[in-house]
Amino acid sequence: MPAPATLVTGIGQLVTNDPARPDLLGLVTDAALLVRDGTVLWSGPAAELVTDPAGVGSDIGETIDLGGAAVIPGFVDSHTHLVFGGDRAAEFEARMSGQAYSAGGIRSTVRATRAASDDELAARLDAFVAELHAQGTTTFELKSGYGLTVDDEARLLALAARVTDETTFLGAHVVPPEFADDPEGYVDLVTGPMLDACAPNARWIDVFCETGAFTVEQSRRILEAGAARGLGVRLHASQLGPGDGIALAVELDAASVDHCTYLTDADVAALADSDTVATLLPGVEFSTRQPYPDARRLIDAGVTVALASDCNPGSSFTSSMAFCIAVAVRDMGMTPAEAVWAATAGGAAALRRTDVGHLAAGARADFVALRVPGYVHLAYRPGVPLVDSVWRAGSRVA
Amino acid sequence: MPAPATLVTGIGQLVTNDPARPDLLGLVTDAALLVRDGTVLWSGPAAELVTDPAGVGSDIGETIDLGGAAVIPGFVDSHTHLVFGGDRAAEFEARMSGQAYSAGGIRSTVRATRAASDDELAARLDAFVAELHAQGTTTFELKSGYGLTVDDEARLLALAARVTDETTFLGAHVVPPEFADDPEGYVDLVTGPMLDACAPNARWIDVFCETGAFTVEQSRRILEAGAARGLGVRLHASQLGPGDGIALAVELDAASVDHCTYLTDADVAALADSDTVATLLPGVEFSTRQPYPDARRLIDAGVTVALASDCNPGSSFTSSMAFCIAVAVRDMGMTPAEAVWAATAGGAAALRRTDVGHLAAGARADFVALRVPGYVHLAYRPGVPLVDSVWRAGSRVA
Repeated sequence: MPAPATLVTGIGQLVTNDPARPDLLGLVTDAALLVRDGTVLWSGPAAELVTDPAGVGSDIGETIDLGGAAVIPGFVDSHTHLVFGGDRAAEFEARMSGQAYSAGGIRSTVRATRAASDDELAARLDAFVAELHAQGTTTFELKSGYGLTVDDEARLLALAARVTDETTFLGAHVVPPEFADDPEGYVDLVTGPMLDACAPNARWIDVFCETGAFTVEQSRRILEAGAARGLGVRLHASQLGPGDGIALAVELDAASVDHCTYLTDADVAALADSDTVATLLPGVEFSTRQPYPDARRLIDAGVTVALASDCNPGSSFTSSMAFCIAVAVRDMGMTPAEAVWAATAGGAAALRRTDVGHLAAGARADFVALRVPGYVHLAYRPGVPLVDSVWRAGSRVA
Repeated sequence: MPAPATLVTGIGQLVTNDPARPDLLGLVTDAALLVRDGTVLWSGPAAELVTDPAGVGSDIGETIDLGGAAVIPGFVDSHTHLVFGGDRAAEFEARMSGQAYSAGGIRSTVRATRAASDDELAARLDAFVAELHAQGTTTFELKSGYGLTVDDEARLLALAARVTDETTFLGAHVVPPEFADDPEGYVDLVTGPMLDACAPNARWIDVFCETGAFTVEQSRRILEAGAARGLGVRLHASQLGPGDGIALAVELDAASVDHCTYLTDADVAALADSDTVATLLPGVEFSTRQPYPDARRLIDAGVTVALASDCNPGSSFTSSMAFCIAVAVRDMGMTPAEAVWAATAGGAAALRRTDVGHLAAGARADFVALRVPGYVHLAYRPGVPLVDSVWRAGSRVA
């Protein structure tokens, strides 16, 4: 016998992201949700409930009245680096006094992460998960990449797998100091014993393909080795300058290529013709004073765009998807609707998930009630905590 | 007999803004506060408590342990417009799709505010006050300016005076539609019956001195009329283009001139030679896509700079001082320390207050515990809610 359904009412504006509805966000005003066993049975205008659209009859248990709130799908943050030790606030402060960002700062977090115990890392990670939930993020990807030894990368992935299914092996984050004179030797390690140790806890493989990190040729070797082990492919590319990383991502059918600040016309055309999502990370450009990527150009070309936080201690220590939306609207040419879509359905596409990022029937019941009448306020009220309550798989998490 | 003192300990880093300490923020690590009757008796290194620096002997009542948090003075937001009716989310959305900002939008809020009951406006204002407290703002200025009739301006100031001492008569926000053909007649009204009705509930008088609002000559008439009634002078100027508003503000010894985006070298020199604070409002430039003011230029010239939210439904609907700090650091050339000072001590200077914006002995005990180890995180973690608990005059308000 199925559990009784939960009825969620008092939704002034509902973002469903349901492509069967006419506008991008699949908006419904004066809406309701029916949820059972953590899954959306039905969503639509509350007035349609009288027809019993989900066939639940009188089998309704709890009713939740959200008092007219705007409700959106839980944010899907498809790019984070939340397992790390140490602190880089001083580096941030120095950069804001004029020093340039470089990928080399990653190595200071590697030192601190190697020195941290599993318990320390797990406690910090649990605090980040609570922080994500409190801000409306209900699905998040999590990368290794601050261990860079076989044992350290493996333990980071084991820690990551405790808190999310969307785990990514990023042994190829930077070449660690002990391989400074032998980067190819490090690639051998990543594609051999490190991959063996990490693959059991990883869904994805990723590479930081950029000057100062890994070349396109090294990136190809690493991604192909991961794909051969059944891992999905994603890539960091074109953050600090143009390169061939976008073409590589498309060639390998990566789920997502992330950063995309410096793109050629050929890159944009290749992305538009592919199933690879362009994931933009506004927090990075905000916190490194780099130029913003041009979301408008990508969307107009037909590329699927996601927004993610890239939450990490070096280049973007925000975990706020609402902040990413506000910056994307202000500085990347997105409309508020496009930005909200990119932070929910776009993130789901970047993780090749169909069960999250929307609230049509069949979705996991991940939803966020906002203290405001509509989704536009996420961009209109930047920095203001607007999240009132958060449900994940039908259970309240914040 | 005095009340027993409250001891606040477990402060990992304390921002005192005490000019007797060497650095700008008067930082103390491993600090403590002693508070009595809502006032700071003493602040300093916890290790000095053994000497009983405040002479309280054993007369300590409550002890509050903040567990290593960074603590800052409550934010002083010296520029808000929080008594209004209606909604302008659609105007914001249209602007983000390419329409330019103009001061004319103010008139739509005037229509809605005139139509709203006192109870509606008061309920909304109370919600804003709770929102400010939750984000660490413990002192805020509040302007009228959406009534623009004698009765409506007077009732907005009466509502404002319920929630703050820092009330500002801004009858000269824009010329209302009914005076479109007779702006001088409106200035007569503002300086005559409207001032009479509003002065009892106002500490300050302000004018929006800008093309499309009021000329420098009109601004002078209005500010001089207010000053003759004992009101302090403040001014909106140089938001949308250069003008003579800065010179006027300095000439009239305004406590603050706000916006300051378009400044001549003579403006900067005049400010540096004056007691007038330059209040910068990063939320406005963020939400209108205007160029940011150059805080670096002002600070380097010796001008006192404050940061404020300008929270209003048209040009800046953020109430987050942390957001303003993050944007000021990213885009206005301020260091994190300068931005935190400007949002606390700077705001106090802009209101000519010596009892708030700092935590040296004698200050009102307004302080905010952050969930992070240091003040830098306010810029380093943009958009993330970092406020853990908030005290105003020694009582917890959030």
